[in-house]
Amino acid sequence: MGGITKRSSAALALALVVLAAAILALAAVSRAEEKPCLACHESFSPGIVGQWRDSKHSGAGVSCFDCHGAEKADPDAFDHYGETIAIIVSPKDCSGCHIKEFTEQKGSHHAKAGQILGSLDNLLGEVVGGEPAVNAGCRQCHGGIVKVGSDGRPTPDTWPNTGMGRINPDGSWGSCSACHARHEFSVMQARQPEACGKCHLGPDHPQIEVWNESKHGILYHANREKLKLDSDVWRAGQEYFTGPTCASCHMSAAGKQPVTHDVGERISWTLRPPISVKLNMVAYEDDTKDDILGENPALPAVGAMDRTKDGGMKKVKAVLTWNERRSRMQEICMQCHEKSFVAGAYVQFDEVVLLYNDKFAKPARAIIEELKKAKVISEPDFDDPIEWTWYEIWHHEGRRARHGAAMQGPDYTWWHGMYEVAKHFYTRFIPELKEVAGEKMADDLLRKYVYTQTGHLWHRDGMSKEALEKIQKFYKDRYSQ
Amino acid sequence: MGGITKRSSAALALALVVLAAAILALAAVSRAEEKPCLACHESFSPGIVGQWRDSKHSGAGVSCFDCHGAEKADPDAFDHYGETIAIIVSPKDCSGCHIKEFTEQKGSHHAKAGQILGSLDNLLGEVVGGEPAVNAGCRQCHGGIVKVGSDGRPTPDTWPNTGMGRINPDGSWGSCSACHARHEFSVMQARQPEACGKCHLGPDHPQIEVWNESKHGILYHANREKLKLDSDVWRAGQEYFTGPTCASCHMSAAGKQPVTHDVGERISWTLRPPISVKLNMVAYEDDTKDDILGENPALPAVGAMDRTKDGGMKKVKAVLTWNERRSRMQEICMQCHEKSFVAGAYVQFDEVVLLYNDKFAKPARAIIEELKKAKVISEPDFDDPIEWTWYEIWHHEGRRARHGAAMQGPDYTWWHGMYEVAKHFYTRFIPELKEVAGEKMADDLLRKYVYTQTGHLWHRDGMSKEALEKIQKFYKDRYSQ
Amino acid sequence: MGGITKRSSAALALALVVLAAAILALAAVSRAEEKPCLACHESFSPGIVGQWRDSKHSGAGVSCFDCHGAEKADPDAFDHYGETIAIIVSPKDCSGCHIKEFTEQKGSHHAKAGQILGSLDNLLGEVVGGEPAVNAGCRQCHGGIVKVGSDGRPTPDTWPNTGMGRINPDGSWGSCSACHARHEFSVMQARQPEACGKCHLGPDHPQIEVWNESKHGILYHANREKLKLDSDVWRAGQEYFTGPTCASCHMSAAGKQPVTHDVGERISWTLRPPISVKLNMVAYEDDTKDDILGENPALPAVGAMDRTKDGGMKKVKAVLTWNERRSRMQEICMQCHEKSFVAGAYVQFDEVVLLYNDKFAKPARAIIEELKKAKVISEPDFDDPIEWTWYEIWHHEGRRARHGAAMQGPDYTWWHGMYEVAKHFYTRFIPELKEVAGEKMADDLLRKYVYTQTGHLWHRDGMSKEALEKIQKFYKDRYSQ
Repeated sequence: MGGITKRSSAALALALVVLAAAILALAAVSRAEEKPCLACHESFSPGIVGQWRDSKHSGAGVSCFDCHGAEKADPDAFDHYGETIAIIVSPKDCSGCHIKEFTEQKGSHHAKAGQILGSLDNLLGEVVGGEPAVNAGCRQCHGGIVKVGSDGRPTPDTWPNTGMGRINPDGSWGSCSACHARHEFSVMQARQPEACGKCHLGPDHPQIEVWNESKHGILYHANREKLKLDSDVWRAGQEYFTGPTCASCHMSAAGKQPVTHDVGERISWTLRPPISVKLNMVAYEDDTKDDILGENPALPAVGAMDRTKDGGMKKVKAVLTWNERRSRMQEICMQCHEKSFVAGAYVQFDEVVLLYNDKFAKPARAIIEELKKAKVISEPDFDDPIEWTWYEIWHHEGRRARHGAAMQGPDYTWWHGMYEVAKHFYTRFIPELKEVAGEKMADDLLRKYVYTQTGHLWHRDGMSKEALEKIQKFYKDRYSQ
Repeated sequence: MGGITKRSSAALALALVVLAAAILALAAVSRAEEKPCLACHESFSPGIVGQWRDSKHSGAGVSCFDCHGAEKADPDAFDHYGETIAIIVSPKDCSGCHIKEFTEQKGSHHAKAGQILGSLDNLLGEVVGGEPAVNAGCRQCHGGIVKVGSDGRPTPDTWPNTGMGRINPDGSWGSCSACHARHEFSVMQARQPEACGKCHLGPDHPQIEVWNESKHGILYHANREKLKLDSDVWRAGQEYFTGPTCASCHMSAAGKQPVTHDVGERISWTLRPPISVKLNMVAYEDDTKDDILGENPALPAVGAMDRTKDGGMKKVKAVLTWNERRSRMQEICMQCHEKSFVAGAYVQFDEVVLLYNDKFAKPARAIIEELKKAKVISEPDFDDPIEWTWYEIWHHEGRRARHGAAMQGPDYTWWHGMYEVAKHFYTRFIPELKEVAGEKMADDLLRKYVYTQTGHLWHRDGMSKEALEKIQKFYKDRYSQ
Repeated sequence: MGGITKRSSAALALALVVLAAAILALAAVSRAEEKPCLACHESFSPGIVGQWRDSKHSGAGVSCFDCHGAEKADPDAFDHYGETIAIIVSPKDCSGCHIKEFTEQKGSHHAKAGQILGSLDNLLGEVVGGEPAVNAGCRQCHGGIVKVGSDGRPTPDTWPNTGMGRINPDGSWGSCSACHARHEFSVMQARQPEACGKCHLGPDHPQIEVWNESKHGILYHANREKLKLDSDVWRAGQEYFTGPTCASCHMSAAGKQPVTHDVGERISWTLRPPISVKLNMVAYEDDTKDDILGENPALPAVGAMDRTKDGGMKKVKAVLTWNERRSRMQEICMQCHEKSFVAGAYVQFDEVVLLYNDKFAKPARAIIEELKKAKVISEPDFDDPIEWTWYEIWHHEGRRARHGAAMQGPDYTWWHGMYEVAKHFYTRFIPELKEVAGEKMADDLLRKYVYTQTGHLWHRDGMSKEALEKIQKFYKDRYSQ
């Protein structure tokens, strides 16, 4: 797939030259430009000034106005002691210098993180919790719509917000400072796992916890000082060769893989929804992207016009199958691991996903759907206890199992993950099913969706020696072990 | 409020001069004094000696006897190879040199942390758990009463104890080594977040977890080496300008704010009790302090005699309203953040506290009180399941939501916080209410306290499109969004 | 006990000399030997090569073939571009140079961690969860059986695996790289707490979490740079004197204690099973070891022939009572703590273990046994809700309380530990008992096992003032406080 695969080092070098030229051009004017700002802010907000002085921006002559300067027509422009400025610096603003990063981020899941309005999670937040909790909770990671008051400043209920998919007054999506925190905007800081851990944590997607307990995290903490985190070019196996961080595998360069700001590019499964599926990517000419789900779906040809998910027609720039995405990740793995090690790790990961999908998620979802169809439970979620149970099985516990397996965190795979899935499936989901549906309907549903699987028979038939042997044989055959 | 607000840099300088003189005076005698101790302890407990050698104390000639020397009449004095010494070094002992810090700590909540005898938590610990768990659990943070055996040594059941509110044999409250760990007593160590995290963590007050996931924590971990943590004077925005720690905001100097050892001085809400309220402070001439709760309560005049909470009469030295306390904190914030950013952060925080208070805590508490009044549940806590549910809603989950919002940890605000509050309110508290009170009384109570609020109507009326719009409109109006 | 107690510094010195000689002998040949490997791997897997270059191995001339070279008859040997190599490097392979470490590890609990087949946890994993979860979960810490395919390479379903008790193709148990990660095999890395935290974490044995919140962890994080973690000889109180890690107390040298690779050597209680008991050790001539449980059990004489747990007869090389094991640990403690401090810490720890054992674990286990005997619940575990409750009380919550007390993590002792034990005992175990057994049998069992203890009476009799005083007096007498 042209556009994406050929982002080679030549392209990178060119981008750097362009950037350097831009910086030099700016430097002459902007060195002087920061002065009026510093006159006050040096004493009013010395921290910001100190951060900036310590940044690459300051060394390159990129000063306050270069980012905060605004046009009068900008929706969030206001007059500040005679200068027209804006508080929000959006990805579009950053793209003036960082066009490659902007382009990659534009089509990524990160940029779309604010589009959760109307989603199940948002309903849960808005209605069951309440707006202020959504504001200080969900939107601080996902990003919220930043509104501008009559004074041109962002309103206190929508600002501060550095959510990854923030919807900016200029219409752009995202927030570069979500990872490259103000006012250093440091690449070194963003390469550290804590940057990602602000949002990728907790009961529902504990990536940082999984990584911390993995060998990768262990080696990072033991060797952090040796990782050359501030190196301009930072390639696994070249500048550093231990303790990979989130960025190492999902974004940074290694082997022939260039750096990318589309963090999903190397991901082959989605572990987010109730049932995991494979992810294929279609990139359009305007650098937006769509996911096409499935093992082997119909995919458009590069160059063809294609109907996008939001209904438009766009020309296809590139297509990346789940298998190609996986190969990209595996190229990173192989900087430090043998082929058979990498293959084995993926086998072990895939099998946990399939176990979760087939043994627990598909039967539970099917049963919930039957209960709704039969009006045993009402259509809205969260007003029946069994709906909370199912929600936590897939959204919390099942994700923990899948993430644990993806990143080799055995405690999350099992104790925080599959153990909880299984415990709640047998000790909550099934009893609650019996309570809402009655024994008869429950038995029918269990017979239809659950006891068809050998792995569930112990629950109906007990753990006789014979039953246990049957189960062990089943797994042996199923997973060729 | 004179005394507290005017602890200016002049006072600080004077204190430093006094301290320096004291140190020099000590140095001449004490350099020799450590020798007899080291003769044995150098080989018996080399770690302690190594810690001391590495400390500022050792550099300033403060030696073993200066802290451990005792008078024969001291309750915990004993003879040790011909010398009269004591094991416990209390805040009163430290005050010989560190009078400013002692004075500030004396009236703080930290110093009072041991006064939980007879509290709900202590009842829970002593009766439901058991004394040994209180001893090795609660008291290792809160502090216990250190008893002295007939040999003059602290008894093994009450020692070791470095709880923050330890009740010492000399009657003083607290333990400096709770934060400045033995035997370095390092300011650098105490400035690091882990020092606070020994106690400010866990299901019931996860401050360190919240901070760790916040941008503040992320920047600390990324930049720790640059923070000049061992600087004598350590001011946000001056000596360092990123990665603020617990101490940065709650204790250390910044702008015109001097350092303080009363960690509550800059706190405007109490997030501890079932219902959060604003905190006003009255400081008395003897440096003890009382909290006066409320948005705008009657407060005594500086210089007046006032009845204290424990019934005495004392002269008022200073008064600090919740609003003044908040301004102190905001002055710290503004070293690195713009005014509108700080204002917005407080709006978002306040609204989460109010949502928690109004939507969940007040109705639940009112219902529990009605159940007790009607003798549906018995007066003692923890013998009815609904009491455990209510206890965890406010003491664990509701605090997590409030702390998350206070310190910008979105995962704690929502998933560990308000999500759990809401889930348990709807799926445990209400069903348990129906079980203990019966449908009729439960419905009456729900009508009286719960369904009066638009935000709860989905639970009674379902999630029709109309109902959802009503709820969204309510929040929009209520929180001006 | 000869062998173990007399591993003196003389023996250590000898071992080092032998090691040095071995290294020198190898160096001459192996410097050349790495070349053919690097020719490809330098570009194919540069990370591995970089790790090795940074290792002591590379400095000492230990190269690829020295570890990966194999004999044709080896079960996992295969031809790799004309060379016979194996992927797995087992402890037996490492013992060629590191015989002392291998010998110590051989009899340790670590080496036996893979022997969980047929255990309760394994049943839970295999049957209730499913094989793939056991593979990516349990076995990544415990170790699995590594099988070899027809191509001589480990099969993808059993490899990668760096579990501590891995069962290797050559029959040896363990994996040195479980702690000393590939391909640096660094002692510095293994001394850091994260190395242990890969497995010693989580809901069921949160050692790393407990340590992190303890003063030990706090001081480590504050002083990590000063700990000389890469020192060849690394003794608490000598090379370093603060921030002890897991290794410091359980493995490393201090005072007269030599370093050991049997991590259990200094442990006096087992905190793993439903009821904690004291641990005595019998070491046999072949360096395998058996645990003999109890306060004061019959122990064989050194030199005698003794029947081992797996039925063989072996000559006893050494015996270490629980009290001697405890003394070894206390010698470590006393490098930095006074005798009375250490004694008190053990009193506080022991009393939590006894409280857990006596108040909760023994009654609950007795009741479960009676329920099974009366066929009120079926023999297999996990098909009745009360079995899950009891399992989590001892396996998760009760361990957390005990580990918290062992390592001075007050939040784990209480909130994650005894609070949860007590809450679930009273609010789940007892109600579930009533549900499965009926009021009559439940009352009989409670009268027999629970209400015989003063500490439980509040639950039956309420919390009258009189009742509370009785309970407090009981604890005062019981724990001499």
